[in-house]
Amino acid sequence: MSSLKNVGERQLIKNIKKVLRPPKDVKGADDDAAVMNSGGKTVVCSDIVTFDRHMPEGMTYEQFGWTAAAVNFSDLAAMGAKPTGLIVSLALPEDMEEADLYDIISGIDQCAEYCGTYVIGGDTKPGPGVISCTALGDMEDRRPMMRSGANPGDVVAVTGSLGAPAAGFAALESGIDAGEAIFSLMTPVPLVREGMELCGTGKVTSCIDLSDGLSSAANIICEQSRCGMEIIWEFLPVSPDVDEVCSAMNGSEEDMVLNWGGEYELMFTFPKEELEALQKTGVFFSIIGHITGDDGAYLIKNDEKRRLDYGRY
Amino acid sequence: MSSLKNVGERQLIKNIKKVLRPPKDVKGADDDAAVMNSGGKTVVCSDIVTFDRHMPEGMTYEQFGWTAAAVNFSDLAAMGAKPTGLIVSLALPEDMEEADLYDIISGIDQCAEYCGTYVIGGDTKPGPGVISCTALGDMEDRRPMMRSGANPGDVVAVTGSLGAPAAGFAALESGIDAGEAIFSLMTPVPLVREGMELCGTGKVTSCIDLSDGLSSAANIICEQSRCGMEIIWEFLPVSPDVDEVCSAMNGSEEDMVLNWGGEYELMFTFPKEELEALQKTGVFFSIIGHITGDDGAYLIKNDEKRRLDYGRY
Repeated sequence: MSSLKNVGERQLIKNIKKVLRPPKDVKGADDDAAVMNSGGKTVVCSDIVTFDRHMPEGMTYEQFGWTAAAVNFSDLAAMGAKPTGLIVSLALPEDMEEADLYDIISGIDQCAEYCGTYVIGGDTKPGPGVISCTALGDMEDRRPMMRSGANPGDVVAVTGSLGAPAAGFAALESGIDAGEAIFSLMTPVPLVREGMELCGTGKVTSCIDLSDGLSSAANIICEQSRCGMEIIWEFLPVSPDVDEVCSAMNGSEEDMVLNWGGEYELMFTFPKEELEALQKTGVFFSIIGHITGDDGAYLIKNDEKRRLDYGRY
Repeated sequence: MSSLKNVGERQLIKNIKKVLRPPKDVKGADDDAAVMNSGGKTVVCSDIVTFDRHMPEGMTYEQFGWTAAAVNFSDLAAMGAKPTGLIVSLALPEDMEEADLYDIISGIDQCAEYCGTYVIGGDTKPGPGVISCTALGDMEDRRPMMRSGANPGDVVAVTGSLGAPAAGFAALESGIDAGEAIFSLMTPVPLVREGMELCGTGKVTSCIDLSDGLSSAANIICEQSRCGMEIIWEFLPVSPDVDEVCSAMNGSEEDMVLNWGGEYELMFTFPKEELEALQKTGVFFSIIGHITGDDGAYLIKNDEKRRLDYGRY
């Protein structure tokens, strides 16, 4: 066997599942959030962020705390759950300034407040600079949106606009002044209300957030739903920040929009004929493609069709 | 302000709570597990273990995985909840051997199986050697045992026997051959069944596990229940391993029994007159003292009474 760096994360997770006993009566073991078996109403998800990997230069401790919470609330949002609590476990370097810790906590608490809930527990101990949050949610009377329900003929949509956090990251690296893009990178907004609204229609067949990038999200939906997807480049709601930063640094718009993570818009699918029900939610979204009986995700651009790989996350 | 190493963990947690908005409708925010507000039946807790701090020399990856799960199930046990799922987030070094990861996973899964549940979700990414598990539990028709319910006049009891993991650690450090003690250090057993049985009587007024040591547990009960506690040294069910290792290395029996963590027995309190109800559970326990109207935890040994501090955890 080899070391972990030679095995992709996705493959690792597949291998890990072979070691585990398959859980009974749990929905969403292949999603980032799981629906508990106790009545099927409680949703839970957990994610680790590390100083090394998730704190780009220029990010404040408050923003880092916000981000640690936001990645979890986004997983609840993708399932359509209402957040009911956050557990925070910290493993922080002993030479860290006390004030910086409280900034992290304040950022976490602000994000919980934004999402209508509270920090309800947690722990702190010395460690290497890691925050692990667990978010809990309640499905109320909605059925959770999974990654596995897309059907051939469904349309594919995304909320909001795409690529701003990637543009922010590129701008930072190249020293380009792009305040809004950089802010969107530093303060990801979990679309909790949008997720609940979309889910509440009962018409959404699958949903995922774009935290690992659009290409990865498309591939995951295809894999979990055993279907294909065609995305039309011209339909993608590209953020104006992407244009701006790409022209300033001569970067690839396509790469920013498709392959970067750190984006918290939702991708979802629904039967064409349900468009009106979705529009009535008031959630802003764009149709970007459709589900096929094929296998794998494809991009259609200038009438050429090419396979989309998993992104860089 | 100073760096984190100058502030005790307990004080840090107190300070953190001042930064946070106090949660609404949640019981147990001062316990290691929290009872959710959605019907009050779901219990959740989360704890991080790190290679650096929680993997003593000689511990296998499988045992480390078991331990990462066990510390969480023990928090459920102390509340009397039935485990319903475990979420596992891993942040592991990229140069780690793949086989070692699967050993960790196998250890986690074995512990989940021992506790009657499954790994229901999780994530893995590169990081500094950290496992964060979140355990979920169901109170069924029981009322959760909190840390805050002890009353003057209650008796104090502990399950099992005390000090074996500390003896194991000391034996390892001194090169003493003490197989059973070392095994108890490497494979902590969460007392899930015992917690549920004790809780099911409805007579337990407070409960906590001894993962931070007996002295700490006693102080926490006193603080949360706003009471005092007297523990009688002669009543403590000291593990035979402690005698054995202490004589071999000329160590302090009292230190091992009172101040060490890594122990997963339960300390609990109940009104004297309910002894029979507790005995009927079949759970093996020893009465070790009683709750007073005083303030703080005390040890009575050879007719001398002295204040117990928080232990070394």
